[in-house]
Amino acid sequence: MEKLFGNAIIGQSGGPTAAINATLSGVVKGAMENCEINEIFGAKHGIVGILNEDFVDMRKLLTSDEDFFALECTPAAALGSCRHKLPAPEETEVYEKIFSVFKKYDIRYVFLIGGNDSMDTVAKLSAYAATTDYEIRIIGVPKTIDNDLEETDHTPGFGSAAKYVATVVSEISRDCSVYIVPAVTIVEIMGRDAGWLAASSAIPRLYGQSTADFVYLPEAPFDYDCFIDDIIELQKTKPNVVVAVSEGIKDEHGRYVGDGTQSGVVDNFGHKYLAGAGKILENYVRRRIGCKVRSIELSLPQRCSGHILSKCDIDESILVGKEAVSLAIKGESGILPVFKRENSDEYKVGIVPVPVEAVANKIRKVDTKFINERANNVSDDLLKLLAPLIEGEVEIPKVHGVPKHFVIK
Amino acid sequence: MEKLFGNAIIGQSGGPTAAINATLSGVVKGAMENCEINEIFGAKHGIVGILNEDFVDMRKLLTSDEDFFALECTPAAALGSCRHKLPAPEETEVYEKIFSVFKKYDIRYVFLIGGNDSMDTVAKLSAYAATTDYEIRIIGVPKTIDNDLEETDHTPGFGSAAKYVATVVSEISRDCSVYIVPAVTIVEIMGRDAGWLAASSAIPRLYGQSTADFVYLPEAPFDYDCFIDDIIELQKTKPNVVVAVSEGIKDEHGRYVGDGTQSGVVDNFGHKYLAGAGKILENYVRRRIGCKVRSIELSLPQRCSGHILSKCDIDESILVGKEAVSLAIKGESGILPVFKRENSDEYKVGIVPVPVEAVANKIRKVDTKFINERANNVSDDLLKLLAPLIEGEVEIPKVHGVPKHFVIK
Repeated sequence: MEKLFGNAIIGQSGGPTAAINATLSGVVKGAMENCEINEIFGAKHGIVGILNEDFVDMRKLLTSDEDFFALECTPAAALGSCRHKLPAPEETEVYEKIFSVFKKYDIRYVFLIGGNDSMDTVAKLSAYAATTDYEIRIIGVPKTIDNDLEETDHTPGFGSAAKYVATVVSEISRDCSVYIVPAVTIVEIMGRDAGWLAASSAIPRLYGQSTADFVYLPEAPFDYDCFIDDIIELQKTKPNVVVAVSEGIKDEHGRYVGDGTQSGVVDNFGHKYLAGAGKILENYVRRRIGCKVRSIELSLPQRCSGHILSKCDIDESILVGKEAVSLAIKGESGILPVFKRENSDEYKVGIVPVPVEAVANKIRKVDTKFINERANNVSDDLLKLLAPLIEGEVEIPKVHGVPKHFVIK
Repeated sequence: MEKLFGNAIIGQSGGPTAAINATLSGVVKGAMENCEINEIFGAKHGIVGILNEDFVDMRKLLTSDEDFFALECTPAAALGSCRHKLPAPEETEVYEKIFSVFKKYDIRYVFLIGGNDSMDTVAKLSAYAATTDYEIRIIGVPKTIDNDLEETDHTPGFGSAAKYVATVVSEISRDCSVYIVPAVTIVEIMGRDAGWLAASSAIPRLYGQSTADFVYLPEAPFDYDCFIDDIIELQKTKPNVVVAVSEGIKDEHGRYVGDGTQSGVVDNFGHKYLAGAGKILENYVRRRIGCKVRSIELSLPQRCSGHILSKCDIDESILVGKEAVSLAIKGESGILPVFKRENSDEYKVGIVPVPVEAVANKIRKVDTKFINERANNVSDDLLKLLAPLIEGEVEIPKVHGVPKHFVIK
C-alpha cells in the first residue's frame, strides 16, 4: 500500500469517562510517531468542531511528558464532547460540508473516540467516504464506562469506573455497618442497558472485603416480592442491608423499575433518560418493611472519577489510542480497535480491529449464566473476569492535595 | 497527683468519618504507652456496648504496625457507633448501671470519640462521676466531618471529607464542561447547620483548578431570585453552570430550602432529618429557566471516603487520640482535646484541653465575613484557612486495587 501523507484530526464524543483523555493522549502519541501524519488537530466537541472548523493544535498543546501524563489523568473529554447524531446517508448536505472541511485542511486521518453511538458516526462517515475519491481513513476508538460495546472483551473507561464503584460501595457498606438499627441502603449504579458496573460493585467480595449484600442487574427480571423477602430474611442476622442496583433494572414485563419518576425525555439517539430506580425502591421498602431506608445515586462521579483510576484501564486506554493510529497508517478505515483477551491464567489482552458496523448501535449484556438463580447476586466467575480490569494504582498529579487537571480552553 | 492505675475503655459514636479510626488508633497507641493503663477495652457501639458489657480486647486486635495502619485508613467506626442520648441526670438508673460496669471491669479511663452530641454524653457521665467516690477520668475525643464543633480550629475527620468534596466537585465541574448545551448542575453537600464542607468545594479555585461556579452556605439567607438571576447571567458566557449548595441552606425566613421533600422525621437529638435542597432547586431551575438541569447529592461517600484521605487529617486524628490519653494520665476529666492554630505563616496546630460543656450541643458556623455580598460564594481568605487541612496523600493498603479495611467483628 502507498503511504498516505496528510493531517490528522481527533474528536471525542458521548458521555465522559475517566480514561477518555488517556486514549486522546495515545492517539496523539501514535500520530507523533508516524511521519505520514503532519498536523494533529483536536476538534472541539467532536463532529460539531469539525463542522465549525473549531480546532486546536495538539502538537502545541502537548509538549512534555508532564503534559501527556496530566492529560491522561484528567477525567471527561478534554476536547469537549457532543451528542450529535448524523442524518441518514441520503441527506448528503452535512456529509459534503464535513468532507469539504477535511479537504480544506488536508485531513487524511480521522479518529473519533466514543461509545457505540459514536461508532454510528464513524460508520456513516466511512460509508460516505466510499462514495468519494478523496482518500481518507476514519477510525473509531472505543470508550464507555458502561462496558456494553459488542466485539470487545471490555471497554476503555470501564475499569476506572468499576474501580470507583467497587471502592465506594465497599466504603458505603462499612459506613452502614456501624449502626445496629435495622436499615436498608440502596445504591443506584449507572448502566442503562447492561449491568457491568453494578456487577463490579461485588469485586471486593473476592478479597474478603465488604460490599453490597445483594446486586441486581438489568439482565434478569427484577421481582419486587423476592427483593423484599430477601431483605427481611437477611435482616434476621444482619440488621443493616446494603443493596446495589443497576439504574436499568426492569420487572418481568420489561418495565423499568425507575420509570415512575421519569419525564419520558429521550436523547438524540432515542434513549430514555433514566434515573430513579434507587428512589423508587427506597419508597417501596419503606412501605413494605417500614425500617429506616435510604437510597444513594452514585451519579456523575462514576464516570469522572479521575482521582481513583485503574492503572490497567489507563495503560490500555493509551495503548488502544496508539493502536488506532497504527491501524490507520496500515490502511485500515471504518474499523475500531478492540480488546481480545488471551485464554491464559494470567490476564493478557491483545488489540484487534473490527468493522464499526459490528459494534454501532449494538449492546453487549452480561451473560445471565453469571447471575444466581434468585437473581440477587453475581457469581465469582464473573468477578474474576472483571477483577483484573480495576487493578493497579495511578499516582495522579496533584497541587496541594487537589487533582491537577489538564484543561484545553 | 497520685497515679491512677486501672483499665481503659474506648467507644465511638455519632456519624461515620474517614478519620474516626485514626483517632481510635491514636487512643490505643497512647494507652499502650502508659503503664497506668492495663486492659484496653473497645466498647461495641459506644455507650450501648458499655451498658451491654460488649467489649473487645484492643491489645489482642492490634498487634502490628500493619494492623494500626490498616485501622487508621478504614472509614466508619470500626467499633460500631450509636446515637444513644443519655437521660437527664435526675434519672440516675442508667448512670448507676454504667458505673457498675466501670467498677466491675476496674475501668478508670473512658474515651468517647464523637461529635458534639457525644460530648453531651461525656458531660453527663462526668457530672455523675463527680457525685460518686469512684475515681475515673472521662475524656471526649472530637470527630465530625461537619467541622462545626465550638472551641476548636477544626475537627478531626473534616479534612478528609473536605478533600473528597473538593476533589469530586472539581471532577464534576470538568464533566459538565464537555457539553455546549446550556445546563445547570446542582451538587448538594453535607452540612446541616454549618457550611464548612460546602465552602471546601471551592478550594481548587486557589490553585486555578475547576470547581463550582456558585457556592451557597446555610450561614447566609438563600435568595431564590438572586440564584436564578446569577445563573442566567453566567450562562451568557458559560453555558454549563455548576452550583454547590449546603444541604442546610435556608431562605430569609429561616425555612430550609430542602424542607419540601422532608418527612419531618427527627433523630434522638431532635435534629430534623434533612435532604433534598438539591432536588428542590433542580425543579426550581427547571421551572424558572427551563434548561437541562440535574442535581447530585454527594451523600454518604462524603463521610466514608477512606480512599481519598487527607494526610494532615489522619496524622492529626491519631495525635488527638494520643493526646487524649496523655491528658487523662495527667488527671484531666470532663474535657476534650482540641486544635489551636498557631498565628504563623506556615500551618501549625497545637492540642489543648477544653471542658466538654464549652462544646456540647453547640455549633460553630462559618463567619459571614467570608461570604460575598451576593451570598453566592466564599472568599479566598476562608479557602486559605481550609486548604492546609486537605493536604498530603495517604497511600492506603489495597488488595488487587480494592481498599483493604480493618474490620472488627
